Amino acid sequence: MISFVNDYQEGCIPEILEKLQKYNYCANPGYGVDYICENAKKLIKQAVKAPDADVHFITGGTLTNKIVINAFLKSYEGVICVDTAHIATHETGAIEHGGRKVLTVKNHNGKILPRQIESMVNEHIGGLSREHTVKPGMVYISQSTELGTVYCLNEIKEISAVCKKHGLLFFIDGARMLTSLFAKDNDCTLANMNAFCDLMYIGGTKAGALLGEALIINNSLLKKDFRYILKQNGALMAKGFLMGIQFEGLFENDNYQKYCKSAIEKADKIRMALKNKGIKLEIDSCDTQTFAIFTKEQYQELQAHFDFGGATFKEGLAYARICTSWATTEDSVNALVTAIEKL
Amino acid sequence: MISFVNDYQEGCIPEILEKLQKYNYCANPGYGVDYICENAKKLIKQAVKAPDADVHFITGGTLTNKIVINAFLKSYEGVICVDTAHIATHETGAIEHGGRKVLTVKNHNGKILPRQIESMVNEHIGGLSREHTVKPGMVYISQSTELGTVYCLNEIKEISAVCKKHGLLFFIDGARMLTSLFAKDNDCTLANMNAFCDLMYIGGTKAGALLGEALIINNSLLKKDFRYILKQNGALMAKGFLMGIQFEGLFENDNYQKYCKSAIEKADKIRMALKNKGIKLEIDSCDTQTFAIFTKEQYQELQAHFDFGGATFKEGLAYARICTSWATTEDSVNALVTAIEKL
Amino acid sequence: MISFVNDYQEGCIPEILEKLQKYNYCANPGYGVDYICENAKKLIKQAVKAPDADVHFITGGTLTNKIVINAFLKSYEGVICVDTAHIATHETGAIEHGGRKVLTVKNHNGKILPRQIESMVNEHIGGLSREHTVKPGMVYISQSTELGTVYCLNEIKEISAVCKKHGLLFFIDGARMLTSLFAKDNDCTLANMNAFCDLMYIGGTKAGALLGEALIINNSLLKKDFRYILKQNGALMAKGFLMGIQFEGLFENDNYQKYCKSAIEKADKIRMALKNKGIKLEIDSCDTQTFAIFTKEQYQELQAHFDFGGATFKEGLAYARICTSWATTEDSVNALVTAIEKL
Amino acid sequence: MISFVNDYQEGCIPEILEKLQKYNYCANPGYGVDYICENAKKLIKQAVKAPDADVHFITGGTLTNKIVINAFLKSYEGVICVDTAHIATHETGAIEHGGRKVLTVKNHNGKILPRQIESMVNEHIGGLSREHTVKPGMVYISQSTELGTVYCLNEIKEISAVCKKHGLLFFIDGARMLTSLFAKDNDCTLANMNAFCDLMYIGGTKAGALLGEALIINNSLLKKDFRYILKQNGALMAKGFLMGIQFEGLFENDNYQKYCKSAIEKADKIRMALKNKGIKLEIDSCDTQTFAIFTKEQYQELQAHFDFGGATFKEGLAYARICTSWATTEDSVNALVTAIEKL
Repeated sequence: MISFVNDYQEGCIPEILEKLQKYNYCANPGYGVDYICENAKKLIKQAVKAPDADVHFITGGTLTNKIVINAFLKSYEGVICVDTAHIATHETGAIEHGGRKVLTVKNHNGKILPRQIESMVNEHIGGLSREHTVKPGMVYISQSTELGTVYCLNEIKEISAVCKKHGLLFFIDGARMLTSLFAKDNDCTLANMNAFCDLMYIGGTKAGALLGEALIINNSLLKKDFRYILKQNGALMAKGFLMGIQFEGLFENDNYQKYCKSAIEKADKIRMALKNKGIKLEIDSCDTQTFAIFTKEQYQELQAHFDFGGATFKEGLAYARICTSWATTEDSVNALVTAIEKL
Repeated sequence: MISFVNDYQEGCIPEILEKLQKYNYCANPGYGVDYICENAKKLIKQAVKAPDADVHFITGGTLTNKIVINAFLKSYEGVICVDTAHIATHETGAIEHGGRKVLTVKNHNGKILPRQIESMVNEHIGGLSREHTVKPGMVYISQSTELGTVYCLNEIKEISAVCKKHGLLFFIDGARMLTSLFAKDNDCTLANMNAFCDLMYIGGTKAGALLGEALIINNSLLKKDFRYILKQNGALMAKGFLMGIQFEGLFENDNYQKYCKSAIEKADKIRMALKNKGIKLEIDSCDTQTFAIFTKEQYQELQAHFDFGGATFKEGLAYARICTSWATTEDSVNALVTAIEKL
Repeated sequence: MISFVNDYQEGCIPEILEKLQKYNYCANPGYGVDYICENAKKLIKQAVKAPDADVHFITGGTLTNKIVINAFLKSYEGVICVDTAHIATHETGAIEHGGRKVLTVKNHNGKILPRQIESMVNEHIGGLSREHTVKPGMVYISQSTELGTVYCLNEIKEISAVCKKHGLLFFIDGARMLTSLFAKDNDCTLANMNAFCDLMYIGGTKAGALLGEALIINNSLLKKDFRYILKQNGALMAKGFLMGIQFEGLFENDNYQKYCKSAIEKADKIRMALKNKGIKLEIDSCDTQTFAIFTKEQYQELQAHFDFGGATFKEGLAYARICTSWATTEDSVNALVTAIEKL
Repeated sequence: MISFVNDYQEGCIPEILEKLQKYNYCANPGYGVDYICENAKKLIKQAVKAPDADVHFITGGTLTNKIVINAFLKSYEGVICVDTAHIATHETGAIEHGGRKVLTVKNHNGKILPRQIESMVNEHIGGLSREHTVKPGMVYISQSTELGTVYCLNEIKEISAVCKKHGLLFFIDGARMLTSLFAKDNDCTLANMNAFCDLMYIGGTKAGALLGEALIINNSLLKKDFRYILKQNGALMAKGFLMGIQFEGLFENDNYQKYCKSAIEKADKIRMALKNKGIKLEIDSCDTQTFAIFTKEQYQELQAHFDFGGATFKEGLAYARICTSWATTEDSVNALVTAIEKL
């Protein structure tokens, strides 16, 4: 059984494994103020070309979203995002548990349009009893999106401009940002995405680290006392160097590039095979996720040898997500491609 | 420079490192429902002799304390603990941030006395305007304590009895529980501590894991839907198997025992050297922590070669904590002992 | 200028004013444990025919909604309601500030359909990663609704049945419940609405009291320690008897009936005049609120003499709410009716 | 039975009762933006000589404390106060429920000393792991204190200076501020207290209003969007004019003065009688509260005719609080004085 269930099923890239061994008996200061973390942060700041940014490592995406949105919005402010956003759908109400309202708008292929932000702000401003409603305070997007699509640089610039105009913070969830850099529709770099937002995070977990997201704070008003906030939220690990090791491993010599590129190439190969076979895609995605619409029979056929982590069945069709990762092998993909051809 | 700064400065025991390599390319289900976690949980349930308990892995102690206390107390209930408790002093108000009040009583060598719990409950019950005050709902202790002392089994039984009598939950923070098992004053086993509490956690981080605490829920009223609570608090790691690996590594073949025993033996050796030299201890601790009172001169002398992570200075004396870990070598300890003898 | 802005613009019914004078120099126990409150609660329990219910007085609707939903849902549970619900739109995110997610479905004339509840529950149960999403825990409706419509008894029974089936709490916001009893579409009594829900509140403010909502808790699992919760939320007034006076004034001799009936009769008269004149209504409401669609010219004409608290303008039309109250006089209504006729 | 149980057992001063009738049929805008509120705010700003301050009315003290401390402290900041402070003891953990930690120091006759604030700040700054502890962010005092003592102007100035030095907000809870103005130990005016704090509130409830506290925000950084915060916390009353009436009634023609003066004179008379009789006082209070230590026999004797709301018994003595109010009559006090003389 070959698994294409998700992009976090394997451990870490070999460079990280080696570092775990290399550093294992070093005596590091606790809570992330060690030299490994310092070096990893330096590498990230170089990669995003933001020498003055603050970088913090947090174990996972939901914890990062919850902390950021709770810390940087006032209690009566809300975060604008699409209805398919991770914070709106798959975090068990973490944002609301942290006291903030999620203000959703309908997605367009997983993306938000600048005019949707504009009209939500205007509705609020124009309301007869403004203070009885939540005030928009932040825009949240994911790059790539939950539907596997990517924002092009121009879209990010336009969102940024609307945010600036209305005094909204702009926050990019980059759980899949590193792989998305190699997606066919992408024209962004880490540096130019970072240049247009107040804060963003680069996901390590889905790019070949064991754990960890690297939060980059650009807006200097948001930097003060952030380690207090991390500690209070249970997000300062005693062995903080563990996360330093992950990001040193990813960014040293741009290691992440070969692995992330590979993950996307494998996904593209699968998409090509599906198209050649005439199997429809639910969404025209370009990251590690492919959303295929099989007949029930096709799905059962593939299920004998491949694991997609389940499917949703509607009117005789099986909607399945096929996911590649940094660890997906040439052999696995070839096996799947062959199987698709034979359907 | 040899460091005795804390018990979380090094990576992990070699058995865990090996497992990281062994499992690196396995395709695991996400979020901790994998076979490694299942096996690690089985090993822990055997170790605590609680086949019906629920076990969950959480990245760190503060996050565990915050989640447990928020989830299992009602909003108007408070947690009773000593004034030196970690939740009262070193978690940046995480418990209050989660909405619960910490009700402190004066510690006796880091410990709480059953009659202190009794009188806090009675004060509440006897109060003229009871509902204007927070209702005691839980007792929190640490084993070993923040001051390096340990509760003996009889003390734990007595606390448990008071809790049962008054309907309080009894929660043991075991960040240093595994090493404390080998402390000279200890007469508890994992199984008998667990038998007397509603829930406790066994710390991996300070026992030789890279991260992770294993929360054991005995009280069946507290088990339902706990994974929702973890997810909502950002505590369900995508690569949950990473924590399974840690605890499989610690508990397989009782690996933790040799490492934890070593950490305590090293600390005992240091304490012996200090006593022989006539250097006073601030507290008669018996875990990996030793609280020495040096003269300023002695401290400066040692500082040239040893790092204790700073000291507090009062009236010409230096109060320093010396900490050993699973990774502390024979050579390091001998060097320190020799230096102490020469003071 | 005659105001039809809302149903809370005047003070209180004369019976309450008299009681304020009568009781002014009595020495009452504080925080609502006085004889006036006791008597008011007794009258309410008789009115709803629920001798075993618990009744609590809370200053306002938003505070009541926030407290109830925070107290009775678990942190990972959400409250299902229509998109036009007060808690979803006009409470500045109070529910989310209290840590709970509001799960909205599209309204049908301001109302929720049983099958919408059913499908939201089923979606959750059937989800691939259930614990990553908020669990439905309560259904919230308003009687009358935000759009001025009323649920008939059968609809309430059906909602109650779906809630029971799926273990959801059923909560009725009755900010306008007393007046709605006299609405033409209504076939409910206080007693039979109360018989089908876990808890509901009867609004005093919009029925002729100076302040206060009477929360009725039927479900015995929700009764314990509720006064702790009130105090903690700043909802136990020192002079609690002030709210006792309001509800004694409303319910003694069924005083509320004549005033609430009058408010509805006045609104019906206005609706009749609008219909006769061919002026469209945005919604076919039947409570104290009438949602008229004027031409811009008609609206300006009326504005010279009547205050509706503003309007929303769309495509040359003015959408205005006309609201009556217990204090609306025959003269005021006649003046408006005449003005409408002359448009 | 004559009651001296508390200072909130009666209704309101006659001037307020008259206003309730006078304004009863006026059509006021909702939520406190009416002319009565505007006028009441104007009168208060004149009384405190702060034309630029913002004034808001909130139903009660606990709600005000909870809102202010939650809104104006960051999540990781704490509020410093004495161990007898209302927020530390009698609000059922409202402050913690709002997510903030209460940092208590030992009281000196109910008061905090500037050097206690200083050393709490210094301890935090000097700590080895600062970000693991809560950061002091505000000082909270009550005027008069829970023990019936008052701060003199010089003490308030000194506290203010320490707060300014360390960037702490200074907040005065004035639940009993109006009566305390007439206490023998008092040398403050409303204006000069207000001049030295960032925000304070003047209690209406205990000064002869039916409900309400008037929050005065001086610090302009705290003014923005405060009505959003009020609404979100359920503290914007629909009939907001009800609170406007209370404070117009208290401050018009300085009405409060004669009533508050009377309340203190009555308490002074009781204290004099106790002293003459040789009955000890637990605290040398000077506000409406007198803390007497009776023998059990004396207490029982008095209990036949006077209600003190219970007593605490220790070693054969009865510790009872005797409380006067604006409504306490000459006759009641004379009866008590006579009874004391006869003991």
